[in-house]
Amino acid sequence: MKNNKLWGGRFQEKASEILDLFNASLPFDKKLYKQDILGSKIHSQMLSHCGILTQEESKQICQGLDQIQAEIEKGEFTFDISDEDIHMAVEKRLIEIIGEVGKKLHTARSRNDQVALDFRLFVLDSNRQIRVLLLELIQTLLNIADSHTTTILPGMTHLQHAQPVNFGFLMCAYACMFVRDFERLSDSFKRNNYCPLGSAALAGTPYKTDRFYTAKALGFTAPTLNATDSVSDRDFALDFLYDLSLIAMHISRMAEELVLWSSYEFRFITLSDSYSTGSSIMPQKKNPDVPELLRGKSGRVYGNLFSLLTIMKGLPLAYNKDTQEDKEGVFDSFETLEISLKILNDLLKTMQINPKEMKEACQKGHLTATDLADFLVQSCNIPFREAHHITGKAVTYAESLNKDLSQLSAQELCSVDSRIPPKAHNALDLEASMNSRDSYGGTSTKATQTQIQSLLAWLQIAKSGECNER
Amino acid sequence: MKNNKLWGGRFQEKASEILDLFNASLPFDKKLYKQDILGSKIHSQMLSHCGILTQEESKQICQGLDQIQAEIEKGEFTFDISDEDIHMAVEKRLIEIIGEVGKKLHTARSRNDQVALDFRLFVLDSNRQIRVLLLELIQTLLNIADSHTTTILPGMTHLQHAQPVNFGFLMCAYACMFVRDFERLSDSFKRNNYCPLGSAALAGTPYKTDRFYTAKALGFTAPTLNATDSVSDRDFALDFLYDLSLIAMHISRMAEELVLWSSYEFRFITLSDSYSTGSSIMPQKKNPDVPELLRGKSGRVYGNLFSLLTIMKGLPLAYNKDTQEDKEGVFDSFETLEISLKILNDLLKTMQINPKEMKEACQKGHLTATDLADFLVQSCNIPFREAHHITGKAVTYAESLNKDLSQLSAQELCSVDSRIPPKAHNALDLEASMNSRDSYGGTSTKATQTQIQSLLAWLQIAKSGECNER
Amino acid sequence: MKNNKLWGGRFQEKASEILDLFNASLPFDKKLYKQDILGSKIHSQMLSHCGILTQEESKQICQGLDQIQAEIEKGEFTFDISDEDIHMAVEKRLIEIIGEVGKKLHTARSRNDQVALDFRLFVLDSNRQIRVLLLELIQTLLNIADSHTTTILPGMTHLQHAQPVNFGFLMCAYACMFVRDFERLSDSFKRNNYCPLGSAALAGTPYKTDRFYTAKALGFTAPTLNATDSVSDRDFALDFLYDLSLIAMHISRMAEELVLWSSYEFRFITLSDSYSTGSSIMPQKKNPDVPELLRGKSGRVYGNLFSLLTIMKGLPLAYNKDTQEDKEGVFDSFETLEISLKILNDLLKTMQINPKEMKEACQKGHLTATDLADFLVQSCNIPFREAHHITGKAVTYAESLNKDLSQLSAQELCSVDSRIPPKAHNALDLEASMNSRDSYGGTSTKATQTQIQSLLAWLQIAKSGECNER
Amino acid sequence: MKNNKLWGGRFQEKASEILDLFNASLPFDKKLYKQDILGSKIHSQMLSHCGILTQEESKQICQGLDQIQAEIEKGEFTFDISDEDIHMAVEKRLIEIIGEVGKKLHTARSRNDQVALDFRLFVLDSNRQIRVLLLELIQTLLNIADSHTTTILPGMTHLQHAQPVNFGFLMCAYACMFVRDFERLSDSFKRNNYCPLGSAALAGTPYKTDRFYTAKALGFTAPTLNATDSVSDRDFALDFLYDLSLIAMHISRMAEELVLWSSYEFRFITLSDSYSTGSSIMPQKKNPDVPELLRGKSGRVYGNLFSLLTIMKGLPLAYNKDTQEDKEGVFDSFETLEISLKILNDLLKTMQINPKEMKEACQKGHLTATDLADFLVQSCNIPFREAHHITGKAVTYAESLNKDLSQLSAQELCSVDSRIPPKAHNALDLEASMNSRDSYGGTSTKATQTQIQSLLAWLQIAKSGECNER
Repeated sequence: MKNNKLWGGRFQEKASEILDLFNASLPFDKKLYKQDILGSKIHSQMLSHCGILTQEESKQICQGLDQIQAEIEKGEFTFDISDEDIHMAVEKRLIEIIGEVGKKLHTARSRNDQVALDFRLFVLDSNRQIRVLLLELIQTLLNIADSHTTTILPGMTHLQHAQPVNFGFLMCAYACMFVRDFERLSDSFKRNNYCPLGSAALAGTPYKTDRFYTAKALGFTAPTLNATDSVSDRDFALDFLYDLSLIAMHISRMAEELVLWSSYEFRFITLSDSYSTGSSIMPQKKNPDVPELLRGKSGRVYGNLFSLLTIMKGLPLAYNKDTQEDKEGVFDSFETLEISLKILNDLLKTMQINPKEMKEACQKGHLTATDLADFLVQSCNIPFREAHHITGKAVTYAESLNKDLSQLSAQELCSVDSRIPPKAHNALDLEASMNSRDSYGGTSTKATQTQIQSLLAWLQIAKSGECNER
Repeated sequence: MKNNKLWGGRFQEKASEILDLFNASLPFDKKLYKQDILGSKIHSQMLSHCGILTQEESKQICQGLDQIQAEIEKGEFTFDISDEDIHMAVEKRLIEIIGEVGKKLHTARSRNDQVALDFRLFVLDSNRQIRVLLLELIQTLLNIADSHTTTILPGMTHLQHAQPVNFGFLMCAYACMFVRDFERLSDSFKRNNYCPLGSAALAGTPYKTDRFYTAKALGFTAPTLNATDSVSDRDFALDFLYDLSLIAMHISRMAEELVLWSSYEFRFITLSDSYSTGSSIMPQKKNPDVPELLRGKSGRVYGNLFSLLTIMKGLPLAYNKDTQEDKEGVFDSFETLEISLKILNDLLKTMQINPKEMKEACQKGHLTATDLADFLVQSCNIPFREAHHITGKAVTYAESLNKDLSQLSAQELCSVDSRIPPKAHNALDLEASMNSRDSYGGTSTKATQTQIQSLLAWLQIAKSGECNER
Repeated sequence: MKNNKLWGGRFQEKASEILDLFNASLPFDKKLYKQDILGSKIHSQMLSHCGILTQEESKQICQGLDQIQAEIEKGEFTFDISDEDIHMAVEKRLIEIIGEVGKKLHTARSRNDQVALDFRLFVLDSNRQIRVLLLELIQTLLNIADSHTTTILPGMTHLQHAQPVNFGFLMCAYACMFVRDFERLSDSFKRNNYCPLGSAALAGTPYKTDRFYTAKALGFTAPTLNATDSVSDRDFALDFLYDLSLIAMHISRMAEELVLWSSYEFRFITLSDSYSTGSSIMPQKKNPDVPELLRGKSGRVYGNLFSLLTIMKGLPLAYNKDTQEDKEGVFDSFETLEISLKILNDLLKTMQINPKEMKEACQKGHLTATDLADFLVQSCNIPFREAHHITGKAVTYAESLNKDLSQLSAQELCSVDSRIPPKAHNALDLEASMNSRDSYGGTSTKATQTQIQSLLAWLQIAKSGECNER
Repeated sequence: MKNNKLWGGRFQEKASEILDLFNASLPFDKKLYKQDILGSKIHSQMLSHCGILTQEESKQICQGLDQIQAEIEKGEFTFDISDEDIHMAVEKRLIEIIGEVGKKLHTARSRNDQVALDFRLFVLDSNRQIRVLLLELIQTLLNIADSHTTTILPGMTHLQHAQPVNFGFLMCAYACMFVRDFERLSDSFKRNNYCPLGSAALAGTPYKTDRFYTAKALGFTAPTLNATDSVSDRDFALDFLYDLSLIAMHISRMAEELVLWSSYEFRFITLSDSYSTGSSIMPQKKNPDVPELLRGKSGRVYGNLFSLLTIMKGLPLAYNKDTQEDKEGVFDSFETLEISLKILNDLLKTMQINPKEMKEACQKGHLTATDLADFLVQSCNIPFREAHHITGKAVTYAESLNKDLSQLSAQELCSVDSRIPPKAHNALDLEASMNSRDSYGGTSTKATQTQIQSLLAWLQIAKSGECNER
């Protein structure tokens, strides 16, 4: 009737069945098996390095752990929920395999620092995987951009036609977002790349351990500074959830445009059949399900961030069981972004871009009105505010004729205000307008090409930088 | 090479593999199989009732669907991710089983209204299950309350000792929270108990259907009023997620107290060994993991609410694929609350209450200071603000002697202010103090018993009311 | 140097200046002055009714309070941050005006139940105001709906053309959302219409008070049941924040459509100049700032809900200062929805609806494809799944000719599949298609009119119901 | 009747009054006046540097702007809501003051890039201010830590006594959190320190501007790369809101401990009267309102983050009015953290630490159980898992005698298990136990001092680093 847990010495009664069900993290934290086994191997090597275990003991432990990893990967390992978590499951099996020596592994550590290590390793590994996917996506965006620096379409603000831009320029805008996402991940990685193992329960350990050995062997910059902070800190997970939230937000923005652009009203792009779906009732439908889902996924990723922020609010030092709730959200957000980045990349590569429809759309919305105002400033020495006002009147006049500003004849244009000279009419040309915006960061074909070059140079450095880390 | 989906008529290319993985809801929406099959059976009966199918056709369909349900429940049904969702999986299998007639089932409906129905049925069913668990929890709280109307302990505000209360009174406070939770669920149920089926894709159907027949047969109050709203509305899911969030919040508050009360500093309660866990490193530890997890679970439940709020923000009419993201959060919050309510109930039933420790704690904190002030108002005609001030001085005096106010002698008490008469000393008795707070809703034993009676009466009505619904 | 607060008896040191700044709620809770004064008047009348104050004392207090209200409303009242909150500010001024008697007002109550009352009254009053605004908005939607039951436009799912609907039908969809919002508020009102005053600090009061008197005089259903719950409960505020969040969500959805509809690509509506704005740089721009802001406002309203959920997480009984953070979010969400509902109503009333553009849009997207499939089912006895497939092929054929399905000649249509008879061509008529969807809740003009009638009937009842409440 | 806005050229009708009220950001964005004026001055200097304005024009503009700044700071500037925002208010006043030349200022820019600049400058300035406050707080924590490296108290996990630690060690744990917060802010600063001005509406400008000039003059690293991204990017604000959320979370954790520690049950600290408040009804109360509010403030800070995440979800390129909603939350979170960090710092400096109560608390909870287990491992060659089990039995035995483990006699201890030698009794000494945990990051006095040294060294570098930035 007594408690048969590894920690059960002082307990008079068995854990209730529902407790195991409620309390156990094994069903989800088994994802951490690789990190757990790696951490235990390095820990045993450190113990032997410091003379706490013999070399032979450490070797036996490592062999036992390797066997366990093989069992798990072959699907031969039995996960038993009453083992609570991956740490206990592995340790119990280790003792089964190698006997008494296995009981020495948990010397000079606690589950508190062990889970802090495993989870941190997982987060750092996932951080790197997401960064690799971001680089691939940025490459795709730049490829598209490079092919479309002269593909003209209406640039929009407030979803209203604003000024003519090229499609490559918009792709660069999205590339810039994902570059920031990459750098945000990179910063988080560096800030959190410290090793908590050896902090033990909350206060360190009386054994003469070498935490620098462990940190180095696991690829960390250094051990963490304070044991209590180490076992209660989940900033690394929050940072990752936040970084993923911003990626999800940026994706949701691009997804919104993809939905708009593939509508009958826009027709700027046509999604590949391979990335579209139909309707069970309406035979004509071809739905942009992928971008819609990409947009909706922001919800779950935000939700996971707020879950963990809520969990951490008001928790006293040091470890509290509430933090066990930290993992599922991180797993979910990571997997969500992993597939989202892949499918967005595929979708972009396979979509058809429709320059003809984009160009036609430029006939609406008086896209070159700003050019007229700028012309009046530059050629007629009219202050900008005044020029803006004159052009506003010209737009009203064009609308009264049911025309686009660009469709006014020179004569019609001049009739609006005596200060408008005939040559102002030239300012209304679409391509000239786009190429006139040649300032740094502007939409002219040349300025866009400069952006692409800068981003490609960044990409080169980012790719090579990845190799040196950890 | 062509698309082999049921909706694939117009598609030139096969869906990509990653699309199936990303797009399919089958891995999670298979939980809705019962609701889906029930809805389809009633739909086919309605179609036959209206002469759109023959009775024989409807019968065949129902038999086929029954067989599918049996297959699923026996684990013999093959879920194939390329079927996308539970609706397509069931329909495809139906056609396999009963042939051409199966192709007639999807007449006069769409997946849009079908999923709206299935998910709504699930939410309403789950709503009822949570309410049953709430009633059981309230019963437990009232049982404890009833046994502890004279168990005195320090009532707290700001976690500082405030006034003496009885433990039963605090249990009633929690019961009141859960009563509100029950009623909130009850209101949500009634507001959302309308049947969307028959709304078809977004605009209704040309078939001469009878939506009132369907609604009645499925236990709804009536059909929904507008087809487009019906397929895009997810208020019912949001209402449920919110209702569950408040339950989770209330549980987190009780959990916080259980953690505090079982600390060495309080010792007001002792959790059963069966609902406690130990430490892998510290042999003496007995940790309140269950209340900690209960407290932390608020995070995921809040997160799920905010996910769906985010998803729904800014979606145009009518159905958009984003809403496919509505289900997992609801499943998760429901299952979280289901087990949380059960385990909290068990924990309360098995915990040991320590009246001695509670009583001892009353010796600290000058708990009867308000009584002294009230005595000065009632017996000495001193305005309350003045009495409050005099008592404040008495407390300061007691602290300077390192005593509790109640430990001052009559003489010491009177020395504080000439307006304090010797009999004021009687006002400092703990039990008298508690029982003096006899106003409606107060903490006197009598007032507490009245509360228990009111809550029991409510419980009776709530239990019987449940039987009549749906 | 001593503390001069009303509660300062036991304090040796003055409050630091930054404490006043940090701690005081007066800068925002002065909004509650009406509720505070009303509550205090009724409280003093109850005290006199129960013989705790004399009639004369109560009269003096009420007169003093009336004077304070007048001072506040004339802007002559000095709010001093060191008074902490509106309760202390009013009580201090009362004592200045009427002297010693004023010190008797705070008998048998505490700031804990006082603020619970004031804030609850504010929330319930605001609840009613929002409901009135919802009714006005619904009326506007129904007026528009009634004028546009034959205005045909493409109904959309996934932002893709789906089936032809009428504009009135879409207005009814939004009306249905706001009807649910009204009923949700109504339910919250009833659930929370209970009076906390008289709960005192946390445990009731030794005075022989009559909480039913107070509750009735203030328009509540009854007093709350448990004193500790009463001072710590903020469910009423959370319910309101949630109710407002759903309204904000529904508004954000309508706003998204208004932005889309007023774009150059759609042109379904033209916003009035009075509710649009221009650009500082682009003279031609007329931006839908109002719907954009309406869409964005969902953010702050969601945020306020999440704030209070976070605050309440894990708070032990009874009152904790954290809950002082409950008010600003509620004020902000209320004021946000108040102006949002008004301006949305104005915007809808003044916008121009463009039936011609809507009709033209119906020429794209093969809107009547479902009709063709349904025709094949009903006239040719082809199972729906088969009919869906044949129609899919017809759509592909039309697209290959760069035509809309409705533009195919009968001959072209029949060439797709031998099972398509010539009269199938009639199924492609837009108006016939719309009016064929005549099921309950469908989009036919007749079914739409029925919806309008139902909603008007509901509106009548809702308006009259409002009069009887409180 | 015509629209008199600066952008009103094409508008036929005046803006409605409610539109001004709803649309205007002036009531809150006037906080940005300094940033706006600075940006405009540098912009005019750049225009003159590039020959777009004459030196004289630029000089006049700068003088006009200086005058406006003086007017605002003297309270003589009239903010008129119909000016919409701070940009228009300043520009309009500039034209009033210097006439026609003022109309030239808005050349080669738009409000889109102007607000992006102003807000970004505000965020970066605020970022630095928060970092300064963090350094002060960390200094205070280290001062306390340094004085309390031998002040022993029970280290806790799960709020249960775990192992003896010193108070300085816990202060270091909090210092580590705030160090991470500082570095997170620092990273955000560097990532976002790029200048958007010159991006104009969304596409750059045809004027021959020099964005590097502007960027350098304003202290930025460089101009932003893509104009469309520049006007729609709000990552810098989100990053700041997130950084503040983590600080708020860490504060909420410390606040929770301060509330616990100042309760009657703990008494580890006594808050200064100057940072505590009383009760309006209970004369004895001295409430930890400050830490409670600090804890609750996490709610609003989280809420502001979630607001902006919601707002940004699904927004298409480029500028949309929704983003106007970005500012109030940032202002609120910044001001909340600004005062929170100050008051927490003051509170810590003035609180009394009670080593006697801390020491007494160590008599409960079998704090040295792990030491016994470790002793058995190290001296008796018993594997850890076995030693853990034996110690568990010793704890159970002590509890059965109603003693703490440390109170067992050597004889009693040995009676538990034959493997326990008499000298094991020495392992139960509290101070020895604490000092035995001497590993890197551990709680021994020596290890704690090492941590303090490391943190002081970091502080030195952080302080000097601040000087070189921007």
